[in-house]
Amino acid sequence: MEKLWTENLRKIEPYVPGEQSTKSDIVKINANENPYPPSPKVQEVINNFNVENLRLYPNANATELKTALAEYYGVETQNIFVGNGSDDVIAIAFQALFNGDLPIVYPDLTYSFYPVWCSLFNIKYKTYPVGDDFRINPEDYKEKNGGVIIPNPNAPTSIGEDLDFIEKLMEYNRDSIVVIDEAYVDFGGVSCVELTKKYENLLVTGTFSKSRSLAGLRIGFAVGSKTLISVLEAVKNSYNSYTVDALSIAAGAASIRDDDYFKATCAKIIATRERVTQEMRNLGFTVADSSANFIFATRSDLSMKDMFEYLKTKNVFIRYFNVPRIENYVRISIGTDREMDIFLDTLKEYLSL
Amino acid sequence: MEKLWTENLRKIEPYVPGEQSTKSDIVKINANENPYPPSPKVQEVINNFNVENLRLYPNANATELKTALAEYYGVETQNIFVGNGSDDVIAIAFQALFNGDLPIVYPDLTYSFYPVWCSLFNIKYKTYPVGDDFRINPEDYKEKNGGVIIPNPNAPTSIGEDLDFIEKLMEYNRDSIVVIDEAYVDFGGVSCVELTKKYENLLVTGTFSKSRSLAGLRIGFAVGSKTLISVLEAVKNSYNSYTVDALSIAAGAASIRDDDYFKATCAKIIATRERVTQEMRNLGFTVADSSANFIFATRSDLSMKDMFEYLKTKNVFIRYFNVPRIENYVRISIGTDREMDIFLDTLKEYLSL
Repeated sequence: MEKLWTENLRKIEPYVPGEQSTKSDIVKINANENPYPPSPKVQEVINNFNVENLRLYPNANATELKTALAEYYGVETQNIFVGNGSDDVIAIAFQALFNGDLPIVYPDLTYSFYPVWCSLFNIKYKTYPVGDDFRINPEDYKEKNGGVIIPNPNAPTSIGEDLDFIEKLMEYNRDSIVVIDEAYVDFGGVSCVELTKKYENLLVTGTFSKSRSLAGLRIGFAVGSKTLISVLEAVKNSYNSYTVDALSIAAGAASIRDDDYFKATCAKIIATRERVTQEMRNLGFTVADSSANFIFATRSDLSMKDMFEYLKTKNVFIRYFNVPRIENYVRISIGTDREMDIFLDTLKEYLSL
Repeated sequence: MEKLWTENLRKIEPYVPGEQSTKSDIVKINANENPYPPSPKVQEVINNFNVENLRLYPNANATELKTALAEYYGVETQNIFVGNGSDDVIAIAFQALFNGDLPIVYPDLTYSFYPVWCSLFNIKYKTYPVGDDFRINPEDYKEKNGGVIIPNPNAPTSIGEDLDFIEKLMEYNRDSIVVIDEAYVDFGGVSCVELTKKYENLLVTGTFSKSRSLAGLRIGFAVGSKTLISVLEAVKNSYNSYTVDALSIAAGAASIRDDDYFKATCAKIIATRERVTQEMRNLGFTVADSSANFIFATRSDLSMKDMFEYLKTKNVFIRYFNVPRIENYVRISIGTDREMDIFLDTLKEYLSL
């Protein structure tokens, strides 16, 4: 029997989310999650939340959360956009800001969702390969384009670029909108949020999923000129007026206001990262200088895929990408010191086999 | 100075969410919110939630929530889709299921977001006017189309259609995908979820925002054939892998499992609605037979706009739509008996001015 209605279905290659294990006795350092719990202030807010209020729609403007972010970044609430995780924020940015005829551009090693959004929203794109050192060359971005998106620090390379890089990018792209995805910036990267005051065509996105240990709550945000933010709001309000729920608004604001806890957590992760980087180099690995909560490593005389598979059998989950150029690299999220010791011990065990 | 980058901005008419008042001493019966708190089981889940787990991404498949819904509706988890409120679910349905060349069709009095999504996703549409009695004529939907979406009960008319109506619709639309938006069905409407087993091209959407008092948490869902659900999943996973957060998954499942509380709350609202309907009719209003948690009313010798404005000055917030055909109607959400008594007293006060 013919089913003509199936012709109306969207033909789309399903994006498959990364592996999730439900086992408890594992070292899960494959999703760039934070090993430390969120701020105790978040615990307080949630466990004391007046659940009765959930019968009402959340504030459509998420004012409490925007106010906390605006104070934190020294901007106004109209310079802040919030969404259901930074994937939601960036997806809305693609729809709102990338409507030119020219292709948008981004590095060829980068966040794997960019081509997926381009496909979903029918946006043309072009990529510029990163160098052999995985650095992004700003000179590549001189060519006329329909928009620029770059993560800084980049993923999965872990490498951060400085403000000179961003300034060059903005100089070369006066006629485009530039989106800098700062998902990993709090682990020692350099934020360009301040430059949004200078460049009206610069949007910076961020997330509560990494440095704020709130991946489970889904909070993302963007900082930019009122012009850019107002178009993001228009698209968001044409999609779903209430993307950030009442608990996320309250808990997110509490997280932002607990700066001491935030700084201490980030510092711990950075210290562990530096130690693990050094230990892996001592074991003969090439490890990029990371500004993120993960490291990107290889050892050319070994198969990283085999190593990844071996670690998995020992309940240590790291990330392997079967992607050209990096098919012999692994990405290792930074866990607690104890977790990283288990990882290093298992690694040494593998190396001595 | 010319700003060429502004040419890449999406030109879109911003959708403006309904009025929200932050005053506390008001009767807010303008957003079809539930006047009763969510199930005490939801309170338990949230106030005892192990916030430490929020550092991890939520389960991308929201398995706990899908399992609870699948058990409730007597289907399998692969027949269930969940999202960030039913607006998210329906927006994804528009992108996933309405990709034909022909316009999609829906009634001309209906949920005001449908044309907004059509505009956002560049979907052509055609509307069929409801009758003078606000009923939807299934014969209108015989014409070839690119998809059908109808809320049942309809909004803002409050009128529900029966299963014969749905069967006719499905008979006339063997080559289209039909989406029935059951946001208000739990207040005495007739659900067609059972028919999704018979018609592979039927998708039914629902929400936790009305009958389950969880508007603040943003949970929506859809029930349909594995074919339809798999395409919704593919589009969702191309947009944002984690649209439903960890707290919503746990709280939503708890709400579904407390069926006694759910039934009792819905019954209270239905009883109050019937009383208010009768009292308003006694006051000379024409009130549609509602199957929803709101009523749709007029009195042809009065200006509903003026009445709406008067009530607002008395801190009683109902909804007025400045829309052709219904510009002399008001929509009144069903609150607690006490709230509705204040509403009725204020109404009587207005009538005797």
